[in-house]
Amino acid sequence: MEAPEFRDFAKSMVDYIADYLENIRDRRVLPEVKPGYLAPLIPEAAPEKPEDWQDVMKDIERVIMPGVTHWHSPKFHAYFPTANSYPAIVADMLSGAIACIGFTWIASPACTELEVVMLDWLGKMLELPAEFLACSGGKGGGVIQGTASESTLVALLGAKAKKLKEVKEEHPEWDDHTILGKLVGYASAQAHSSVERAGLLGGVKLRSVPADEHNRLRGDALDQAIKQDLADGLIPFYAVVTLGTTNSCAFDRLDECGPVANKHNVWVHVDAAYAGSAFICPEYRHHMKGIETADSFNFNPHKWMLVNFDCSAMWLKDPSWVVNAFNVDPLYLKHDMQGSAPDYRHWQIPLGRRFRALKLWFVLRLYGVENLQAHIRRHCGFAQQFADLCVADKRFELAAEVNMGLVCFRLKGSNERNEALLKRINGRGKIHMVPAKIRDVYFLRMAVCSRFTQPEDMEYSWKEVAAAADEMEAAE
Amino acid sequence: MEAPEFRDFAKSMVDYIADYLENIRDRRVLPEVKPGYLAPLIPEAAPEKPEDWQDVMKDIERVIMPGVTHWHSPKFHAYFPTANSYPAIVADMLSGAIACIGFTWIASPACTELEVVMLDWLGKMLELPAEFLACSGGKGGGVIQGTASESTLVALLGAKAKKLKEVKEEHPEWDDHTILGKLVGYASAQAHSSVERAGLLGGVKLRSVPADEHNRLRGDALDQAIKQDLADGLIPFYAVVTLGTTNSCAFDRLDECGPVANKHNVWVHVDAAYAGSAFICPEYRHHMKGIETADSFNFNPHKWMLVNFDCSAMWLKDPSWVVNAFNVDPLYLKHDMQGSAPDYRHWQIPLGRRFRALKLWFVLRLYGVENLQAHIRRHCGFAQQFADLCVADKRFELAAEVNMGLVCFRLKGSNERNEALLKRINGRGKIHMVPAKIRDVYFLRMAVCSRFTQPEDMEYSWKEVAAAADEMEAAE
Repeated sequence: MEAPEFRDFAKSMVDYIADYLENIRDRRVLPEVKPGYLAPLIPEAAPEKPEDWQDVMKDIERVIMPGVTHWHSPKFHAYFPTANSYPAIVADMLSGAIACIGFTWIASPACTELEVVMLDWLGKMLELPAEFLACSGGKGGGVIQGTASESTLVALLGAKAKKLKEVKEEHPEWDDHTILGKLVGYASAQAHSSVERAGLLGGVKLRSVPADEHNRLRGDALDQAIKQDLADGLIPFYAVVTLGTTNSCAFDRLDECGPVANKHNVWVHVDAAYAGSAFICPEYRHHMKGIETADSFNFNPHKWMLVNFDCSAMWLKDPSWVVNAFNVDPLYLKHDMQGSAPDYRHWQIPLGRRFRALKLWFVLRLYGVENLQAHIRRHCGFAQQFADLCVADKRFELAAEVNMGLVCFRLKGSNERNEALLKRINGRGKIHMVPAKIRDVYFLRMAVCSRFTQPEDMEYSWKEVAAAADEMEAAE
Repeated sequence: MEAPEFRDFAKSMVDYIADYLENIRDRRVLPEVKPGYLAPLIPEAAPEKPEDWQDVMKDIERVIMPGVTHWHSPKFHAYFPTANSYPAIVADMLSGAIACIGFTWIASPACTELEVVMLDWLGKMLELPAEFLACSGGKGGGVIQGTASESTLVALLGAKAKKLKEVKEEHPEWDDHTILGKLVGYASAQAHSSVERAGLLGGVKLRSVPADEHNRLRGDALDQAIKQDLADGLIPFYAVVTLGTTNSCAFDRLDECGPVANKHNVWVHVDAAYAGSAFICPEYRHHMKGIETADSFNFNPHKWMLVNFDCSAMWLKDPSWVVNAFNVDPLYLKHDMQGSAPDYRHWQIPLGRRFRALKLWFVLRLYGVENLQAHIRRHCGFAQQFADLCVADKRFELAAEVNMGLVCFRLKGSNERNEALLKRINGRGKIHMVPAKIRDVYFLRMAVCSRFTQPEDMEYSWKEVAAAADEMEAAE
């Protein structure tokens, strides 16, 4: 494909994208296809000769769209939002054209340096302590990871390297595997599944600490767990504090857990994957109280801050633990400027990395902080609107406090009735939600996800829930 | 930003991209900036109010381009190629618009299913054994990872889980950390740095096995290392066979190493990150001899097959070892169709994943297999052209056999002279290369990287090398 064709093809795609997103509300949010639907629609092997781009364009509606779950529809309420905005899409186009692999500074200085500055911009928007920012001139700084799971794992590996070194100094007679067998990390029973998975990947024990009746990890519970493990000869090294859990958007008490972990010399990683975006609004920053006790902090602008996936922002007070943990330095990756700017390959699991700071830059400039704050506040307002509709219907109850853009609700009564209700809602295909369960209580989660959402959409979604309940009652 | 503005902005970006790439040859390949160049060019904090997209467009040349290393210039010969093509850029635009997170089948069936079929298409193009393909109806199948480093790590973790289970069955009295302390993996001393790093991340020993005089890992050397470790009470579990090393594009003897590893029940992972793309040409498939002995195979279409980063193709004969190794299954990610299609989140390190199969689909259809083969063959021809120019100059010698698109060469004489030569070449900024060192011999690597390369570009690059040598001799 040559440039003139690309201009036509890409501009045609621009129009397709705008048409798709502006009319996304009219599509059925959940596809009706069955597993294996796609293979029969296309050939069994790649073509020998090139095809026309017009034929590829036609196949998007024929092959792809019937199997797409429309995450950006105002009728999509599953999981948590994933971001999608016009400025981010355009920035990713530029990233694809430059297509540098920014593993070292010299491999593309702009790629590294824009990332350093964008993470400072973002850190200032959240009022992170200066120790986390590169512009403070200290050790700290930020990096873009692909996902929050990777941030949790990177922090765990940094914490593991730090503790290994400390314990070996104290017990030079112990070998690595003896020490690793004693290491233990902590997270609330309400933490995301990726925290448990980070433990599996990192080959260390992670203990699940019970949350309080509001689903928050408390300082006392953490302290008790650590003390118990110390008494049993284990070595506490890592604690994950979640600000905005996936189940119910609960906020662990960082102001209690942080000091406890600090006291025991345990690395504090703050996972604010979803809710962290809200901290650009001063009125939500009280949830971050105690942030100065953290060693690493992570949230996903690619969830709720209009920056397309993948853009998970992570800050480290002392990146050297992570950098030195997996530093392998072959000659072909060395360069003369080493040490004067971060070589981000040492900060992450993969070696390669795209130029992702561009989309942060475009989004921050083309929305401005004001409009990003407005976006967060609108979503929180929609959640409240839905919750009000819900509690006004005597058949329903809230299953947790309404936090941010998430409403946890259920039919009064058994879990089975709620499972049946959700099955009916998703089966109707007009809106999409997923469930959660806390202390054996099953409930539905309504996450406000789309940037296209309007008050009428919330009414529509509530009516759909109520209609499914009516239908169920009629069938009972 | 609303849709009408997006249409203008994105179309303006399309033209910028086409202009950038079509004229990339005219830019200085290596930037002249010093570390810290960027921060003073932009404000210290994000703007409160939105800016105009036209101002953002203007800043690309002012802020970004002065710090870009132009990976797609025909004058860029560092590392290995990274892919960049018009069809892939357009596919990524669509991926950004759909912006689904394909962690489970239900989260967007098209995202999972197109990936399954594209990995089959690709596997057929390489003539991978049917056991690796999902369409064979067996256990095997392919997945898109972000990078080869992640593939190496995922395979290592799968191999570790498999061996742990086997050893525990034999020695129920051993605990995990006792077994982990005994596990040992293998790779050639010429393997990529990410292999060593996978060992660090996975917390297991990796032994570096000497390569032969042609820089290839041989069956005898592997057998000897494994037997020695067995005699020392260790447990061999994983071997990485590299097809196309980074230093010199050497090909480990898979036909020898595979059977040796199979005999000792050691997982064979084939890392063909760069050279694997060449296996779409029948004349290069002899390097894959022994592929039927492999447990996992990986190459990067995002290197040499015109699919933009990130698209690292990995096939597993039995994905269940990987899937079960880190399977955490919270309620909010469960769905009714589980088991009838892969839930790719279990196949990878991160939870989230973009719709990356689209760019494979677009590239395969819009180039056709014929043109992709022609691209590989042209690059191999350019390397030969450069090598011929090099050996015609009596001052120079080849440092390794010319394989694929890579020429390893040096000035006859000391390492110091060659270090000085490379410094001079990169300092002139007209072409860009990186060095390597094998058995204490330092040499320069000229990788053919750009899809815009023409025979005249090879002449230009050679003249630039010769001119730097002239300059050096004049200064001596």
